[in-house]
Parts: sequence; C-alpha cells; structure tokens
Amino acid sequence: MSVKEYLESQRVIIDATLDRLTPREETPPSTIHRAMRYSLFAGGKRVRPILCMEAARAVSDAPTGIEEAACALELIHTYSLIHDDLPALDNDDYRRGKLTCHKVFGEAMAILAGDALLTLAFEVLSALTMIDGDRRARLVKELARASGTLGGMIGGQVEDLEGEGKPAEAALLNTIHTAKTGALLRGSLRLGAIYGRAEMHQLSALSRYGEHVGLAFQIVDDVLDVEQTSEALGKTAGKDAEQEKITFPAVYGVEESKRMAESERQKAHAAVEMFGDRAKRLREMADLIVNRKA
Amino acid sequence: MSVKEYLESQRVIIDATLDRLTPREETPPSTIHRAMRYSLFAGGKRVRPILCMEAARAVSDAPTGIEEAACALELIHTYSLIHDDLPALDNDDYRRGKLTCHKVFGEAMAILAGDALLTLAFEVLSALTMIDGDRRARLVKELARASGTLGGMIGGQVEDLEGEGKPAEAALLNTIHTAKTGALLRGSLRLGAIYGRAEMHQLSALSRYGEHVGLAFQIVDDVLDVEQTSEALGKTAGKDAEQEKITFPAVYGVEESKRMAESERQKAHAAVEMFGDRAKRLREMADLIVNRKA
Repeated sequence: MSVKEYLESQRVIIDATLDRLTPREETPPSTIHRAMRYSLFAGGKRVRPILCMEAARAVSDAPTGIEEAACALELIHTYSLIHDDLPALDNDDYRRGKLTCHKVFGEAMAILAGDALLTLAFEVLSALTMIDGDRRARLVKELARASGTLGGMIGGQVEDLEGEGKPAEAALLNTIHTAKTGALLRGSLRLGAIYGRAEMHQLSALSRYGEHVGLAFQIVDDVLDVEQTSEALGKTAGKDAEQEKITFPAVYGVEESKRMAESERQKAHAAVEMFGDRAKRLREMADLIVNRKA
Repeated sequence: MSVKEYLESQRVIIDATLDRLTPREETPPSTIHRAMRYSLFAGGKRVRPILCMEAARAVSDAPTGIEEAACALELIHTYSLIHDDLPALDNDDYRRGKLTCHKVFGEAMAILAGDALLTLAFEVLSALTMIDGDRRARLVKELARASGTLGGMIGGQVEDLEGEGKPAEAALLNTIHTAKTGALLRGSLRLGAIYGRAEMHQLSALSRYGEHVGLAFQIVDDVLDVEQTSEALGKTAGKDAEQEKITFPAVYGVEESKRMAESERQKAHAAVEMFGDRAKRLREMADLIVNRKA
C-alpha cells in the first residue's frame, strides 16, 4: 500500500472514531454539537492522531483501542483552531477553504464549542477501556501539559500574540514554535508511546522524532504562507507578514528555511531508526510533511 | 468554631493550594499567568472546593490531599466565569466588584486564560499523588462530564443563551439550571465522594444533596439579581431582566421562588442525614447558601 493510500485508510478510521465519540447533531443542545462537528469534520488530515497511532505501533504489536486515545489530539487541535480564528485572536474568516466556526455559528457559540471540544478530549482519555487507570491518568497529564501554558500550546499562542511586531529573532521564534505547534505534535507521539507501554528509551526516541517533525511542520507552514496562494492553502495566505508575525522566512529567508526543514526531516528519520520497519510509516510521514504543498 | 470561621479556614486552605498549583506570575509567558491569577484570586468564596472537601470528609476519616482535587473545581468555575463575561457572551464589565478579565487583559488573553484554567483543572486531577490511577481517571471523567455539553455546564450555558427572549417556562428553566450551575455543584460533591472512596449509596446521597443545594443556589442567585443593588452583588444587578433571561422569579414570582429555595434547603438536609455529625458543615452550608445576601 502506498503511503497516501495508507494515510487515507488511517484517516477513515480516525473520522469514524471521532464521529462515534462526539455527541450527535440532533442531541440537545444541538447548536453546539453542530458547531463542534462543523469544525471537527472540516477536512482535517488527522496528522496528529495518525502520528499517535504510529507511535503506539512502533512499540506494541496490537495497541487495541489506540484510535480513541488518538482522537483526543484532534479534539484539542480543533478547539485550538476555533479559538485562534476568533476576531479577538487571528480574526480568520476561512479555514481549509470553509468559513470558520464563528462566521457560521457566531462568536459565543464558537467560544463554547472550543471549550466543549477541549473538555471532551479529556473525557475521552479518562474513559478509555483497554488500558489501566494509571495509563489513562498519565495520558491526561501528558495531553494537559502539551496543551498548557508552560512550554505547551497555549503558552506558544501567547508568545506568538505578544511577538507580533517585535524584531524577528531566532531565540523568540524558537520559543514560540517549540510550544505553539511543537508541543502537541510531540505530545501526539508521546501519547501513542505511553499507550503502547513504551520503554523509556523508546519514549525518548519518539519524543525526539516528534520534536523534529514538529519543527519541520512549522517551517514548511511559514514558507507556504509566503509562497502559496490563499486558494491552494484554503486559508488566507500572506497573513503572517501582514500581522508582523515572527516566522522562519522572516528570520532566515526562504531558501535557508527550506534547508532547515530538510535537515529536520533527516533528524526525524534518524530518531526512529531503532524501530526498523515498524517506523516505516513515521519516516514516510516526515517526508510528506516536508514536501507538502498546502 | 462557628460555620463562618470554619468556612474561612477552609477558604484559606483552598487559596493556598490554588496558589501552589497555578504557575507564578513571573513565569513566562507571564501575561497569561497574570490573567489566570487575576480571575482566580478575585475574591471567590470557594463554595465548590469546600463542598468537595466536605463530601470527602463525610465518607472518609482522613482524605489526605483532597484540597488539590477540590481546586480543580474552582479552576473550572473560574474559566467559565471568564468566558461567560466576554463581550460575545454576557458582556459583563464587573465581577465580584472588580473589572472582568477581558477588561483588564483584553479579549484574546481572556479567551486563552480561560482555556488554560480549563486545561490546568484536568492536569491537577491527573497528577494527584495520594490516590491510585483508577480514581484519578475517574475524577477526570466526572469533572469532564459535569463541565461538558450533555447535561453539563457548557450545555446549560448554550440553553441559557438560546433561551434569551423565549417565554419563561418551567421545563426550560429546569433544563438550563440543572446543567448550567447544578452539574458543577453536584460534581463538586461527587468528586469529593469518589476521592474519599464512597460506597454507592453514599455517592448517591451526596449527589442528591448537590442537586438540591445547586437548585437552591440558582434560585437565590436569580432572586438576588432582582432584589439587590449592583453594589451589594459586586456585579451588574438586573441583567437577567435586561437580557430577557429565563429565571425563577420570572417563572414563579419572587415569593414562590423563595419558598422553593427553602424547600430545596430542607431536602438537602434530608439527603445527608445518614452521615450524622460528619455532614454538619454540609447542612450549615445549605443554610448559608439559601440565606445569603450577595
């Protein structure tokens, strides 16, 4: 099976599981369930859940039920997109080529839908049935830290907001992106590894893979914002420069940024070498992330 | 010790624990930590955490560490106040006599501070050290459900928003308040009971106490909004009528609402009769909640 076919098969599993874990549209109060589902099923590639499942498979033969744990990452990711798009934050009208949640359901409902997805992520982890309570609690802790203010996603979001208009410096850029996108991508690998009962050195290796892939992902994201059209991206291109965001192209230039992404790709490969064939899909995903066009 | 002295001693314990569990203001990114602490230490009475601790004490001799679990309830309560006060929701400038979070830190930071408190609540539960993983995970599940869309706090918030301007009917009023304020108050008792290893019949009794006290709390809140001045409440009085909210006075009138609160107080007492002296403070708290003036 080609990597594209494989990823598609995994996306289908995640979509079906998300559908099962999220309240139905007709369940009252239905407006919020419609808003949650609108953003959750807006065409995401499910990168984080698939990385989570692959991490579990790198260390365990049959990590039954991993797809449910993996969905918690997509619930967090989706809540963060909804809140980031709000007028008070990035003020985006489009996301993946569709109107953003607050444009369709209004700001109040978008705020609450984000809160609800965040809450549901932890409920899902706490209710996993195939692993023991210690691991359920450990997954909650990992996800909360990856999403929180201390080196986590929210912390990165704050640094990003406060960095607007500041001089483009490498140290600040690194702080922002390690937290803003890096922590949840790294967390995706760690949740999968913990679910699969990874040993310490395996958990470290998968964390390192996550850090390199996370950095590559963000560099490519910044480069695409400069080079691509809004149509190709499905969101407004050129927003970073307009908002005076600190980006990799702004600090290093486009060509050097591309070299850096390639270097991170190679480091990601090296990090999972010990897993041999079991990390085949992880290596392919690193390649795809660096070479994507949108 | 009088009940007022006792509650004050418990409030001090909760405040000290919240202070220990929340990142320091000077820790980067400091703006969000200042915003979180601004709202967290804005003079709350800590009703939910104290109910949680008392529930644990009703079923266990020495529920060591319960104050940490109890703080998760205040973190959730505070996040919900920050988000409720936003311009897109209730648009309140004052809360407990102080400017609301978004008035001081801006809307973007208030949204993120709420998200961060919500996330921290689950981190705190997942990291409890005095109980086993099964109970940690169970507490996470209880709190997520009490805060979520299906009969939980967010669900009630949505029904409340959508109820504005609708005819004041008893059934809708009940749906809104059972979820909006009732679920987290009931959850406070349940978290404490689970922490203290309650037996099933004890958990049910404490849940029922929570339901009655929660209903009494909301009825009194609605009555105070009609009868008290903004100065006495520390927030804008008369907002319910202005926003055409469905309230107990609107459906039943003020006098009947007061009778209903008294009836709930008595039912709360009856629910915890089986615990004898161990529920003394719970009975006193039900009395205070019904007789409060702000």
